[in-house]
Amino acid sequence: MGIRYNVKDFGEFILLQFELDSGVIDPSELEEAVAKAPPLPGNKGVVISGRGPIWLFAALCHKYHPSQWVATYDPRLGAVVVETHTKKRRVGEVISTTLQE
Amino acid sequence: MGIRYNVKDFGEFILLQFELDSGVIDPSELEEAVAKAPPLPGNKGVVISGRGPIWLFAALCHKYHPSQWVATYDPRLGAVVVETHTKKRRVGEVISTTLQE
Repeated sequence: MGIRYNVKDFGEFILLQFELDSGVIDPSELEEAVAKAPPLPGNKGVVISGRGPIWLFAALCHKYHPSQWVATYDPRLGAVVVETHTKKRRVGEVISTTLQE
Repeated sequence: MGIRYNVKDFGEFILLQFELDSGVIDPSELEEAVAKAPPLPGNKGVVISGRGPIWLFAALCHKYHPSQWVATYDPRLGAVVVETHTKKRRVGEVISTTLQE
């Protein structure tokens, strides 16, 4: 099962990028893929980015829901906040920080 | 903001189908879209189905995370469980019940 995670600290949030070795993932690999995702500090936001199915994003969002907020990266828009536990960020907010190198 | 929800009870779980009136949604509409999603019983699973962006699925999964389990419907595979609070369903399990009429 090939999934690699890359973590980058942007101060207010962590960018968690995943990459599927073969470009695809089977649902039978989901549990292990989520388990392999690194622990992240709970006092920051998390932006999840990568090319993968909706159910992979959804499972990763659930893993990180103790974080301050969670966003998913949409290549057309930027990082869209999908859940938040802080008044600093609203659901639906688009984080405009450039996330690419 | 046009999103419509359709709820169908399959016994073990509720199928929640959404439909975007214009086929698209802007992140600024996400909070309202999630608020419009109907309350569902917490003692069943929830399968979320529809054509929409990852961030809409992720926000809806978060709304329903008190449910027994949450799955997202993948047209190629079926409903894939992304989070569970019961031993009856595993993360990554594909619900094979036919969900279409």
